[in-house]
Amino acid sequence: MQSLEELGKKAIAAKYKLQTLTEEEKNKALLCAAKGLQADCEKILAANAEDMRAGRENGMHAGLLDRLKLDEARIDAMADGLRQIAGLPDPVGNILDAWERPNGLKLQKISVPLGVIGIIYESRPNVTADAFALCFKAGNAVILKGGSDAIHSNMAITDSIRASLAKTNVTADAVQIVESTDREMAAQFMRCNDYIDVLIPRGSAGLIRAAVENSTIPIIETGTGNCHIYIDETADMTDSVNIVINAKTQRIGVCNACESLVIHEKVAAAFLPLLQKRLQEVHTVEIRGDEAVCHILPEAVRASEADYRTEYLDYILSAVTVKNIDEAIAHINRCSTRHSEAIMTKSRENAEKFTREIDSACVYVNASTRFTDGYEFGFGGEIGISTQKLHARGPMGLKELTSYKYVIAGNGQIR
Amino acid sequence: MQSLEELGKKAIAAKYKLQTLTEEEKNKALLCAAKGLQADCEKILAANAEDMRAGRENGMHAGLLDRLKLDEARIDAMADGLRQIAGLPDPVGNILDAWERPNGLKLQKISVPLGVIGIIYESRPNVTADAFALCFKAGNAVILKGGSDAIHSNMAITDSIRASLAKTNVTADAVQIVESTDREMAAQFMRCNDYIDVLIPRGSAGLIRAAVENSTIPIIETGTGNCHIYIDETADMTDSVNIVINAKTQRIGVCNACESLVIHEKVAAAFLPLLQKRLQEVHTVEIRGDEAVCHILPEAVRASEADYRTEYLDYILSAVTVKNIDEAIAHINRCSTRHSEAIMTKSRENAEKFTREIDSACVYVNASTRFTDGYEFGFGGEIGISTQKLHARGPMGLKELTSYKYVIAGNGQIR
Repeated sequence: MQSLEELGKKAIAAKYKLQTLTEEEKNKALLCAAKGLQADCEKILAANAEDMRAGRENGMHAGLLDRLKLDEARIDAMADGLRQIAGLPDPVGNILDAWERPNGLKLQKISVPLGVIGIIYESRPNVTADAFALCFKAGNAVILKGGSDAIHSNMAITDSIRASLAKTNVTADAVQIVESTDREMAAQFMRCNDYIDVLIPRGSAGLIRAAVENSTIPIIETGTGNCHIYIDETADMTDSVNIVINAKTQRIGVCNACESLVIHEKVAAAFLPLLQKRLQEVHTVEIRGDEAVCHILPEAVRASEADYRTEYLDYILSAVTVKNIDEAIAHINRCSTRHSEAIMTKSRENAEKFTREIDSACVYVNASTRFTDGYEFGFGGEIGISTQKLHARGPMGLKELTSYKYVIAGNGQIR
Repeated sequence: MQSLEELGKKAIAAKYKLQTLTEEEKNKALLCAAKGLQADCEKILAANAEDMRAGRENGMHAGLLDRLKLDEARIDAMADGLRQIAGLPDPVGNILDAWERPNGLKLQKISVPLGVIGIIYESRPNVTADAFALCFKAGNAVILKGGSDAIHSNMAITDSIRASLAKTNVTADAVQIVESTDREMAAQFMRCNDYIDVLIPRGSAGLIRAAVENSTIPIIETGTGNCHIYIDETADMTDSVNIVINAKTQRIGVCNACESLVIHEKVAAAFLPLLQKRLQEVHTVEIRGDEAVCHILPEAVRASEADYRTEYLDYILSAVTVKNIDEAIAHINRCSTRHSEAIMTKSRENAEKFTREIDSACVYVNASTRFTDGYEFGFGGEIGISTQKLHARGPMGLKELTSYKYVIAGNGQIR
């Protein structure tokens, strides 16, 4: 088993090689890796079967087992993901800006890879291929640190990709995996500043918090979404019901699902029973509300302050009534995780006020928060949804996996 | 004395107000603050006299005392700095990108303030006014944490600016200062994630390292510069000597000064004596070199590996000879702090190779590294030079003090 130092040194060597690859070389390597994953299907499924067996023995929850499970179709989907990323434009080497100074210096701002990216993630093995492909297309070397639940699957996928890369003129060390799954190793990984330029944790709120607390490497916080929908006084009731139901129930375990409703008091009595009625046709959702909400919906339970700050990822929805849009904005800015929020309104003025004053990555007018996603935004793929303000905010695609450098051409200028 | 929590809550309240200010309101406030600093000159100088007295009593070094000292001219310069920043374009509210999706969703990517910025800095009191002005113009609230050496000066400057802001319709809490100077408070400050969006440490390598190690708030690493100049085989000898002398001696205490020379072995014997001769006319510079360098320059001393990694900020220069440009690039990428590096060459091919493969924020061809500076780049001001790859790299002006949000307009779209 290699030490983090060994992995780090190899990643740095790889990073310098990757920076010099052409777009064609990168795409060729991605297509080769895609083909390789399908060719290695049996090996990967055998490794996955080991993880599944261990999961069952450890009493893993059915939902988690499903996320862990691979089959031929899922491996095909992984391979297709790599092919799609090969089809996206190269984000590296673009001249982002160019200008000349009075002293004759010519400046160019050019997009470059971040360098070495560390990814810490939990049980979904498809992240292994996805994260590699996005980082690689953006010219980065990547070191993966997956969870113990999926270690055999992750290693098999990584081995397959490395073998494919070695067949092209790309170094296999473009992707490496930390084989140890112990927690101390994860803590050490977060302090590998000498080797890793940027750390991206992908997974539960607990994992993100551990990275914020412990990482000395610059990180990008991703994913925690306590997303709100505000039903304004002038909201269209039918659209509002459709959108809340979509944002809450279409997929409950995702970070852009709606977790909290904010309702103008003048429309609460009209809206809530309508919502409740339509919800009964879809799925039971427990509503936790303030006094006014509970008065209108007898089946609702009283919400605590903690409820308004909770990302349920479940069939539960918190709800609060407000006197006006200012109260709505203040409530959301106080409780949100700065991921995605929506306003339902016919008032242009209120829509503008809401989008201006809400301090979140994505602010919607009359649309579902479920659209916060790299594919839905048209980025073609994403490495995560950033909820911080430094570097990237919202869905992070290829462009967000790059940095830039200034190249300055002179002819002897001194200061 | 207010607690960090009190300061933090006020900063958050201020941040929401600042986000809604127009460019005119911000500029008016900056001009008013500039006038106020000049009007409060006597008070500020009295406070500064206290810091100077304490500095002398504590045996502060003459160079540091000079950096700490204020006089009328320096206060005028501070005020002029504020006026210049008022004259720069507003970086907030710009539509950075806009597109429509097939489902009719209209997306806009809009520049927004970062929110609350924490600045930790050392003894130069002018940072107080500069940092406020840049953060403020970009719509951010700022909490300052200066060093104990300048605490009276910093507080007097902050009081003056706050009083001016209160006279306009801008909240005085746009700028606040941590009055306590104890170290435990600095450590707590770096963990105020609930209140501070971004932390920017400005000062010594030790301060930056402490922030990297201890901050849980996203930080921007600034300033450490082990900058290299590579003298290629085809370099113009006269330009090379001029540029090395400029980059090494024009101002030794700055992060973009040259600290290390890398010399193609074929030109070392021609270049080094020429450099040594010209240096004697300017200032004695100790050269620490490898065997070849010491052979050519008998007055040179042997460099250790540590020398090649040291930012001297002094009249010392390390020097190493290399066989070719690949060795030069490898040496620089191994030892540099990724700030600024230059190549002296007449070869277009080598210039391109160097600028492509050197992994630093600013890469120069035939020009002095001393140009890495917000003013020299034409940004009109800077909050620091970023040596990290996340968010901003190189000189950070107003644009780098903003983030963005996505605003998505729909008409009932669900997923």
